[in-house]
Amino acid sequence: MSAEAADHHVVIVGAGFAGLKLAHDLRGAPVRITIIDQRNHHLFQPLLYQVATTLLATSEIAWPIRRLFRNRRDVTTLLGQVQGVDRAAREVLLRDGHRVGYDTLVLATGARHAYFGHDEWEPSAPGLKTLEDATTIRRRLLLAFEQAEKEDDPEARRALMTFCVIGGGPTGVELTGIIAELAHKTLPREFRRIDTRETRVILIEAGPRPLPVFPPRLSDYAARALTRLGAEVRLGQPVTDVSDAGVRIGEAFLPARTVIWAAGVQASRAARWLDVPADRAGRVLVGPDLTVPGMPEIFVIGDTAHVEVDGAPVPGVAPAAKQQGAHAARVIRARLSGRAAPGPFAYRHLGNLATVGRSAAVIDFGRFQLTGWLAWWIWGFAHIYFLIGARSRLAVAISWLWSFISGQNSARLITQKETLRAEAADHDPPPQDRAHAP
Amino acid sequence: MSAEAADHHVVIVGAGFAGLKLAHDLRGAPVRITIIDQRNHHLFQPLLYQVATTLLATSEIAWPIRRLFRNRRDVTTLLGQVQGVDRAAREVLLRDGHRVGYDTLVLATGARHAYFGHDEWEPSAPGLKTLEDATTIRRRLLLAFEQAEKEDDPEARRALMTFCVIGGGPTGVELTGIIAELAHKTLPREFRRIDTRETRVILIEAGPRPLPVFPPRLSDYAARALTRLGAEVRLGQPVTDVSDAGVRIGEAFLPARTVIWAAGVQASRAARWLDVPADRAGRVLVGPDLTVPGMPEIFVIGDTAHVEVDGAPVPGVAPAAKQQGAHAARVIRARLSGRAAPGPFAYRHLGNLATVGRSAAVIDFGRFQLTGWLAWWIWGFAHIYFLIGARSRLAVAISWLWSFISGQNSARLITQKETLRAEAADHDPPPQDRAHAP
Repeated sequence: MSAEAADHHVVIVGAGFAGLKLAHDLRGAPVRITIIDQRNHHLFQPLLYQVATTLLATSEIAWPIRRLFRNRRDVTTLLGQVQGVDRAAREVLLRDGHRVGYDTLVLATGARHAYFGHDEWEPSAPGLKTLEDATTIRRRLLLAFEQAEKEDDPEARRALMTFCVIGGGPTGVELTGIIAELAHKTLPREFRRIDTRETRVILIEAGPRPLPVFPPRLSDYAARALTRLGAEVRLGQPVTDVSDAGVRIGEAFLPARTVIWAAGVQASRAARWLDVPADRAGRVLVGPDLTVPGMPEIFVIGDTAHVEVDGAPVPGVAPAAKQQGAHAARVIRARLSGRAAPGPFAYRHLGNLATVGRSAAVIDFGRFQLTGWLAWWIWGFAHIYFLIGARSRLAVAISWLWSFISGQNSARLITQKETLRAEAADHDPPPQDRAHAP
Repeated sequence: MSAEAADHHVVIVGAGFAGLKLAHDLRGAPVRITIIDQRNHHLFQPLLYQVATTLLATSEIAWPIRRLFRNRRDVTTLLGQVQGVDRAAREVLLRDGHRVGYDTLVLATGARHAYFGHDEWEPSAPGLKTLEDATTIRRRLLLAFEQAEKEDDPEARRALMTFCVIGGGPTGVELTGIIAELAHKTLPREFRRIDTRETRVILIEAGPRPLPVFPPRLSDYAARALTRLGAEVRLGQPVTDVSDAGVRIGEAFLPARTVIWAAGVQASRAARWLDVPADRAGRVLVGPDLTVPGMPEIFVIGDTAHVEVDGAPVPGVAPAAKQQGAHAARVIRARLSGRAAPGPFAYRHLGNLATVGRSAAVIDFGRFQLTGWLAWWIWGFAHIYFLIGARSRLAVAISWLWSFISGQNSARLITQKETLRAEAADHDPPPQDRAHAP
């Protein structure tokens, strides 16, 4: 590689599926790569709901970014929070004051859950995008049962034993299924004053059916499967208010002390950093080469990009993010080698999968569809295959096997003292007094 | 069992080794048992330092208390924080206002780390007693390297790459060993700007030698083993000040951004709840039957009790706590059955163990002493044997095996957003902007 080429600096912001795939595919290219992320770990988000519901431990689905690239001398990893891009100086601005210069910039900063203009709902209805989100939800789930065991007032107890999941997409269906199993299968023998089988787990979907992106037949199957697990599915009713006391659906108020938000996503701030047009979800409109129109040196890929293929926007799923990362790598390689640019980004849809509890799933491969336990095993093998590292594959396989055999979940810990402290008001007193720790 | 006897209510506060052993040994006794703890989990503290140093995941050494007793209909578990005892009414007072009546009360509320009247040092030098302590220390260790990788000022970088462990007991030695291995063996290939092998890991012990309770020969071995791992051992120098900038030893100031406290423990508040005399460490002075003098219905056991056997106080170690739990169970059983009380508590010392890194340990069985890798394996098997549950034994064995084979640690995650936020000032910016999460 020429000295000049070796000086070409590619800065990747965000180490999700898109960013990691790009860095991986640039191996051996005549570039220096810097990966900037505000976390020190890559997160396997498709299994995050299992951490939130005590099936998996955090370390089973997250890996230090710099460890993934320890053998890539061309890759530098920086922990830092981007808060702007100086296009004139070609520098990324970090919140701690550092500026990182780039020749090619790739923004793969993902998306977060969105509250449709009701951000005030977030404290009462946490979403699920980060490990902290997952441990927060896990803590609230488990604390609700602990509180109920102590609660003497029947109404307050009912509210503590009512769990609402807002949003009938895959995440909402998956959370609902595992929570129902937790209450109806895992916990019953462990409580003396309450019968956890009286727990209500309610999936609320504004549309006419759950899993709207799936064929109706699979939506119906999922709804029936959830009901069999002891959950309730409320369709066609939009949520009009959320508070620590419960959820308002249309006019009816549903007392529920634990509410989880799985209803919508909002792209990262990439569009604001670049001051470019975005779609309603805040995603940057990019061209068929995944660069921002008028900014050939800046790529936007993954959940934070709005890419249209055959007139339809590419969905915000892991396979799409990886494919965009791979395409961006091809474009960058072609440019540096002076070769002709590859054709426009073409999205290959691999299908949709969603699990219902620990033994059923629905798979839509287009003409080929599947439901039930076989679908679950296909889903399980697929996810274990895509996990990073032999150890995580083994660990997750063992955790799942264990929960099948023993009916016990492996990560039922209430942690995060700070949050507990913050919630002393509506939850169990915080364990400030270390002296009392066992 | 007679109806009257079945009404006898034993309340156990604290689900550590002492409390769990007592509840276990009361199986089948004519009593109702309530276990109160401010955590939902029992913690295997002897391995907590491995969570703090990224070798193990939190869920590998902690188990939900109520799950441990799910088959014991006579045991009720309550999550709650005790803040007093009403001896006249024979009730335990919880912070949330609940009162729990008892016939026999057992306080097994353990100990926390103590700062010898310098509590202002705690924010700068966290101790290690809870899972949150462990993840806090883990986060600070990993953030220090991340910060150093970005730091341009050589002095600031040196301070970030200097780690002080205060206290040369087993915990201090164990923390120092693993941190040294982390810096000198695990991390070097992962950073591009810093050489983590330049990291200084300094064990500070005010006394003349580390592991003071061990024979001098083993102390010397431990000191040499730590030095071989790349750590420094500073003896005979008391720490006179601790701040976020570093540690003052005698007159000398040592710049260090990461300081861990392993120097002393303070018993829980049991003595204050009962308004009874305590020793200098705050431990309740109990009689040979482990009850409080003048309060035959109240037992105090484990790290929060001061028990003398043959004129010497019983040490605050797990085996001693278990033996006290077993003895208290015998006393309670004898009383209820009208049998003669068992003899005074007799402590059987099983020996002292401490590890130095991942391949050496020192064992003192009195006349039989052992050092090196064989000691480590004996230590390892002993600890896996005492872990609760087949799954944890398997998980920990795999984690250790993995770290041997790959040289990689399995739980290198920076989490606990709240704490990050609180430390925005002296650490990396907090990931408040979810939009930027990968």
